Amino acid sequence: MQTQQPPATAPASASAAAPTPLPPPPPPAETLIFPPSNATKLTPHLPPPHLQHNDQDQNQDPPRRPFVTLTFATSLDSSLSLAPGTRTVLSGPQSKAMTHHLRAHHAAILIGVGTAVADDPGLNCLIAGARSPRPVVVDPRARWALHRDSKVLQLVRAGQGLAPFIVTAEREPPAGVAALLAEHGGRFLFVEAGPETGRFRWADVFDVLGREGLGSVMVEGGGEVINSLLAEPECGLVDSVIVTIAPTWLGQGGVVVSPPRTVGEGGRPSAPLRLTGVEWHPLGEDVVLCGKILR
Amino acid sequence: MQTQQPPATAPASASAAAPTPLPPPPPPAETLIFPPSNATKLTPHLPPPHLQHNDQDQNQDPPRRPFVTLTFATSLDSSLSLAPGTRTVLSGPQSKAMTHHLRAHHAAILIGVGTAVADDPGLNCLIAGARSPRPVVVDPRARWALHRDSKVLQLVRAGQGLAPFIVTAEREPPAGVAALLAEHGGRFLFVEAGPETGRFRWADVFDVLGREGLGSVMVEGGGEVINSLLAEPECGLVDSVIVTIAPTWLGQGGVVVSPPRTVGEGGRPSAPLRLTGVEWHPLGEDVVLCGKILR
Ligand SMILES: NC(=O)c1ccc[n+]([C@@H]2O[C@H](COP(=O)([O-])OP(=O)(O)OC[C@H]3O[C@@H](n4cnc5c(N)ncnc54)[C@H](OP(=O)(O)O)[C@@H]3O)[C@@H](O)[C@H]2O)c1
Ligand SMILES: NC(=O)c1ccc[n+]([C@@H]2O[C@H](COP(=O)([O-])OP(=O)(O)OC[C@H]3O[C@@H](n4cnc5c(N)ncnc54)[C@H](OP(=O)(O)O)[C@@H]3O)[C@@H](O)[C@H]2O)c1
Repeated sequence: MQTQQPPATAPASASAAAPTPLPPPPPPAETLIFPPSNATKLTPHLPPPHLQHNDQDQNQDPPRRPFVTLTFATSLDSSLSLAPGTRTVLSGPQSKAMTHHLRAHHAAILIGVGTAVADDPGLNCLIAGARSPRPVVVDPRARWALHRDSKVLQLVRAGQGLAPFIVTAEREPPAGVAALLAEHGGRFLFVEAGPETGRFRWADVFDVLGREGLGSVMVEGGGEVINSLLAEPECGLVDSVIVTIAPTWLGQGGVVVSPPRTVGEGGRPSAPLRLTGVEWHPLGEDVVLCGKILR
Repeated sequence: MQTQQPPATAPASASAAAPTPLPPPPPPAETLIFPPSNATKLTPHLPPPHLQHNDQDQNQDPPRRPFVTLTFATSLDSSLSLAPGTRTVLSGPQSKAMTHHLRAHHAAILIGVGTAVADDPGLNCLIAGARSPRPVVVDPRARWALHRDSKVLQLVRAGQGLAPFIVTAEREPPAGVAALLAEHGGRFLFVEAGPETGRFRWADVFDVLGREGLGSVMVEGGGEVINSLLAEPECGLVDSVIVTIAPTWLGQGGVVVSPPRTVGEGGRPSAPLRLTGVEWHPLGEDVVLCGKILR
């Protein structure tokens, strides 16, 4: 497959020579409220307070890996969206507010480049007075054509969000994107990918985020990111799981969360992944499942 | 594919000539308790009382179709079992007791022949003092090799369950099975199948059950039965949905509940199926979702 990269230098020099006029400011940010009675139920499943915004004990050597929360919304048939490349609104308004509450309590929010391309997501926090997390996009081939009008950069300029860190295996990522990131306060982070698979080890991705001082990261999607993180042994890196389920079946052909079957000791299939310390909290028409992966 | 049929007459005449000795009686039935506090929550989702055991107003012409409850247990990734032909215990003891409570409140329990062959299920009710439902097996080619030691017949002989009705499109189903059914109080019910698909219309299946005086039926599985009943327009026949979800991912390759995508008016894909009047009831480690299909 071809990578889709913007021309390596043109946009950067263009913007240096004759700065493009500022796009119209985004509409005034919607604010969301997540009631304390609901928030209390989530507290035991959040990162410890000293890791929620950065790692307050950063001078460890080697740096500590962030606390990892895996969180997403699915249909009853475990679909994240109707098809790859489409965004599907699954959960109701209360669940949306919950997602933003989680964003307020994590230093970083991580998605795969598939989601960045499909959704043009904002990745900020819409709860009044709350901090927004650092967006992190896993993009080994640096194929995300980030541009000035990408929602995440509009929000930075409006003072409503942080610029992304893009985790890539490209030693020379597109200069135009690098300049745009730098201008907004973001950057590329280099991680070595497997020579054959082109895939990162998740431990390496989290290590680099730890070195950036990020104490916690919520992984939001999409399908490939979640499934690879639910596979053995990568799932050992996940500290907390928070899944919203909406009472709908999207039907065959969606982007499905279902981990690959792996082979354990003695060549036998590994036991299915199970959660422990499980809590189910109904939230509007949806339910929120909280737990930890059983080891 | 070949149907697997026992020799058409041998077992019947064998049993007439020299009755096979009775197999050892089944172990004493386990009894289950479903506490009234939980039972109350399910009441609004059950058939009306006059349809729970049979249709008490049976003299209607044409006979009324039974009240249909669709109920099953899945993993988070919507799997019923790890693989076709295997039985996977998904849900905990409280959810098992709930299933038996539902059995006590339906006139019939329906499964596909795939489940009958894979699980050799009992299909009775283990709640002390409660009635067992009539087992119904959807078996268009009459390929279920029911025999004297099948669990469902052992239970009939122990006074702990009813003999099955087998819904088939075979005009001359295997005589041995027919005799065994008759001996235990069950029978074959004939329904015409689509000439090309070999499939029943679900309306025809429920009509024949209505003519047998069955006022309500809980459909328990497996995958093909559920998916075909969740497809448009068949889903219009379902009155109540009760799904148990266990906090585990079975992983890719399981028997998955996910309806086929169908095409609606003007050639556009039909809207995803959604439930309305939704309630989520945590039950042990599992959650029970109750609702109706939104039209
Ligand atoms: N419902 C929700 O909560 C939710 C949340 C997020 C997203 N979504 C939906 O999910 C869909 C996108 O899912 P998706 O599976 O297509 O995309 P994705 O998981 O967001 O991104 C997949 C891409 O990320 C890169 N990647 C993922 N894991 C990697 C690893 N271990 N190492 C290196 N690279 C890795 C790969 O990029 P390369 O191909 O360049 O190698 C891969 O193709 C969209 O429809 C979106 O709307 C839903
Ligand atoms: N977790 C749970 O709650 C639960 C409940 C039940 C079963 N299960 C599991 O589900 C698995 C079995 O699922 P499955 O999909 O293989 O089998 P299934 O749905 O039980 O049975 C499928 C068969 O039933 C017949 N059938 C179904 N719909 C029909 C229709 N509309 N018209 C005519 N015939 C129809 C067909 O028989 P022919 O092939 O002969 O045409 C079909 O192959 C097993 O592993 C079982 O343990 C789990």
